[in-house]
Amino acid sequence: MTTRVDLNSDVGESFGRWTLGDDDAVLRQVTSANVACGFHAGDPSTLRRTCVTAVREGVVIGAQVGYNDLAGFGRRFIDVTAEELADDVLYQIGALDALARAAGSRVRYVKPHGALYNAIVHHEEQARAVVEAVLAYDPALPLLGLPGSAVLAAAEKAGLRTVREAFADRAYTPEATLVSRREPGAVLDDPEEVARRVVELVTTGRITAVDGSTVKVEADSVCVHGDSPGAVAMAQRVRASLADAGVEVTAFVEAP
Amino acid sequence: MTTRVDLNSDVGESFGRWTLGDDDAVLRQVTSANVACGFHAGDPSTLRRTCVTAVREGVVIGAQVGYNDLAGFGRRFIDVTAEELADDVLYQIGALDALARAAGSRVRYVKPHGALYNAIVHHEEQARAVVEAVLAYDPALPLLGLPGSAVLAAAEKAGLRTVREAFADRAYTPEATLVSRREPGAVLDDPEEVARRVVELVTTGRITAVDGSTVKVEADSVCVHGDSPGAVAMAQRVRASLADAGVEVTAFVEAP
Amino acid sequence: MTTRVDLNSDVGESFGRWTLGDDDAVLRQVTSANVACGFHAGDPSTLRRTCVTAVREGVVIGAQVGYNDLAGFGRRFIDVTAEELADDVLYQIGALDALARAAGSRVRYVKPHGALYNAIVHHEEQARAVVEAVLAYDPALPLLGLPGSAVLAAAEKAGLRTVREAFADRAYTPEATLVSRREPGAVLDDPEEVARRVVELVTTGRITAVDGSTVKVEADSVCVHGDSPGAVAMAQRVRASLADAGVEVTAFVEAP
Amino acid sequence: MTTRVDLNSDVGESFGRWTLGDDDAVLRQVTSANVACGFHAGDPSTLRRTCVTAVREGVVIGAQVGYNDLAGFGRRFIDVTAEELADDVLYQIGALDALARAAGSRVRYVKPHGALYNAIVHHEEQARAVVEAVLAYDPALPLLGLPGSAVLAAAEKAGLRTVREAFADRAYTPEATLVSRREPGAVLDDPEEVARRVVELVTTGRITAVDGSTVKVEADSVCVHGDSPGAVAMAQRVRASLADAGVEVTAFVEAP
Repeated sequence: MTTRVDLNSDVGESFGRWTLGDDDAVLRQVTSANVACGFHAGDPSTLRRTCVTAVREGVVIGAQVGYNDLAGFGRRFIDVTAEELADDVLYQIGALDALARAAGSRVRYVKPHGALYNAIVHHEEQARAVVEAVLAYDPALPLLGLPGSAVLAAAEKAGLRTVREAFADRAYTPEATLVSRREPGAVLDDPEEVARRVVELVTTGRITAVDGSTVKVEADSVCVHGDSPGAVAMAQRVRASLADAGVEVTAFVEAP
Repeated sequence: MTTRVDLNSDVGESFGRWTLGDDDAVLRQVTSANVACGFHAGDPSTLRRTCVTAVREGVVIGAQVGYNDLAGFGRRFIDVTAEELADDVLYQIGALDALARAAGSRVRYVKPHGALYNAIVHHEEQARAVVEAVLAYDPALPLLGLPGSAVLAAAEKAGLRTVREAFADRAYTPEATLVSRREPGAVLDDPEEVARRVVELVTTGRITAVDGSTVKVEADSVCVHGDSPGAVAMAQRVRASLADAGVEVTAFVEAP
Repeated sequence: MTTRVDLNSDVGESFGRWTLGDDDAVLRQVTSANVACGFHAGDPSTLRRTCVTAVREGVVIGAQVGYNDLAGFGRRFIDVTAEELADDVLYQIGALDALARAAGSRVRYVKPHGALYNAIVHHEEQARAVVEAVLAYDPALPLLGLPGSAVLAAAEKAGLRTVREAFADRAYTPEATLVSRREPGAVLDDPEEVARRVVELVTTGRITAVDGSTVKVEADSVCVHGDSPGAVAMAQRVRASLADAGVEVTAFVEAP
Repeated sequence: MTTRVDLNSDVGESFGRWTLGDDDAVLRQVTSANVACGFHAGDPSTLRRTCVTAVREGVVIGAQVGYNDLAGFGRRFIDVTAEELADDVLYQIGALDALARAAGSRVRYVKPHGALYNAIVHHEEQARAVVEAVLAYDPALPLLGLPGSAVLAAAEKAGLRTVREAFADRAYTPEATLVSRREPGAVLDDPEEVARRVVELVTTGRITAVDGSTVKVEADSVCVHGDSPGAVAMAQRVRASLADAGVEVTAFVEAP
């Protein structure tokens, strides 16, 4: 039986005159593309071009929804009400879906971004709002999130398909949570080490924590980055190592 | 044989803390609702509430797409490229469609707003961009516009269904175009006169121009306003006069 | 010796096509105008018109700075860093000062708005950021805030002049803090009662709390509202009652 | 007698997560910094950092004012009214001035950006609006623009000091206007050729036009770019060639 995993990355995050990331390069490495939706990044023309490239590369398109905060790139917690958040998320999914459709595909999953992603690990009300939005748009859309998070719990309870995510370049605590970015060693930058850890995680369901202990981390999808030349090289190394280990890298939904 | 006409109005134009128009009242008078899409007016929660009300009143939802200009309410011409405009329009249609879907309906037609509406009477490139966006989203969506405009010509050429629009409270030139708002007498404010003119236009296909001559104006839909108490009263008067004249007021697409 | 107090109100909160409040009416009642600065409300032309009216009515202009959140009207807490917040506040003060200058005056004080106002009652880091911005712009500008708040403490420590504010239409706890808006009876709507309480507060330095006890509340300025016909009437009643009680209603800085 | 010229460049055009240009490098080459003001580019923290660097390098700060169009980077003509434009420009100058002040300097001149710069070569109404804004803010501020433009004519008529600008990397017509970017050869990319032309222009008041003829172009300031490694290298080459030719490169106002 072949072990399988999905690789996802944030793309479509340029805005107008400003370019961010090498989307063309990263879309050659991943199987799922978290395309920004215009609230924290991504103008309509960027979204369309990104969707066209994703379709060309056979990559599944997901809606990378975030707070309405272009100046903060969605990285600042905003205390929105559940109603506002659900409507903002619906708006974003629909907007991206239009551009995905024009590119010959559709939005196939949803992944919250930045501060929203982090907030709904614990924030029950905002977590339910995101789930409500996905349900209202299309209850067949899977929702990507952190294993053990409030949002995945709410999604399961509501009958949504959930996709558990791990992070290629992040250190884990003995409790299987991410080491805070404020701690030393939270972010790993050696491509070889990162690739080795991803293979370990995918093939064994376990990973070595910062204290040297081994913890259980089950993941359906692994997040890699593409916003620097080093990040693209790391994604390539992860993909190659998974292939060497006989792991099938494939999207968690059927390719478009 | 019964004469039929659609009544449309701009709604969903509130934004955050700011309220504009009495959408509840106007949605009791019209058969088609041009709901703003967030670029020149309308936040996601406003759009959703407006769609819910439209569905409750049996009013068809259309996407009122505009320039990306909240500060200018979409009333200032912007020299966007065709590519940018097409993508902006696609984004807006999809965004509204998500909120219409959550309200139990869908976007059923497209009507450009404000300066964009006026620009694409003559601006061939922007006109084609709007048509391209509608085609890419759903070629079954009708496009509302001014008879004789570049945008309706482009839409027909592309195979889109076009809906010709007349304005209840505007004076017409002997050439069957609208008298410029800069001219005296361009906007009519007597509900009785406006209602009488709409009945004349709908039942005879002709209207009295500013110089007293009679000109041919064929319209499938008549635009009324709802952004003031007087506007709502005028819409009521128009609707009642059409009923008295035996005209069936009905949407140009089937109710949702 | 005459007792004196300042009356302040939020103005300049219209945006583009959207009107909010009756600024002309409220500027005839108050002595200090908290003019929005474009981040949570107020476009440049609104700001300029508001400043012109304030100058005409002899009302002092203050900068009503807020979070960068037009969609939320600055009423949602945003977890901005101290550096970002200080720079956002500086930007807003300078922007309004330009329009005040064109109207023949200058920004004479600073009052944080909405969720920012509430946050810096307790949030030390954001409180210091606001103080830092005022210091960097002009250390002679007074800062308006809630007595006992983190922001007034930080301002005093930094050598800024502080202005203690009370709220005309809010109930107080026995601890002299505001009753939360989520509690019943938090907001008072009887103009007579509100006017009587303001006179009590200004002339005695004490006010009756929700539990009937009397608490000490020292205020240099009392906030009244102007965003509804009822609010303007209440402001008029407050002003008249203060005059009847022999209180001099005057700005805390010299009129422009 | 020493010949003198100013070198100016657009800086401060990053926005939030998005970086644009190598401001540190370009600020080591120029004498005047056109700092963006947040409407078409530049968030408050970027503006402040840019002003701090400019002060450190002894570079004069100017306000690079533009249309309110972040998505379009101010490169799309917007048909704003004169009143709106004047107020938008005032707002921007004041905002930047606050951040310049926090950096120990002040805004010392104004240069319109992008589509606004191009529009007011001919658009009389918008040209007067820009002049009105500068006058209202500080009539001592010089205004940078194209020789022969409507805006410099309006500025002179209003008593503003005008600064005539030439472009280092642009071809000129025999009528001494810029060759349109849509024409081949409009933009020059050979640093040696560009540097040679700038020296010719500054030392002789004449430049070779595209047809080989020599035309008169008087310039007080030459614009160089810094938004690519090649651009910075070109700016360095221009500066070095001017030094070699004995031209004093110095700001048109006194250093801060």
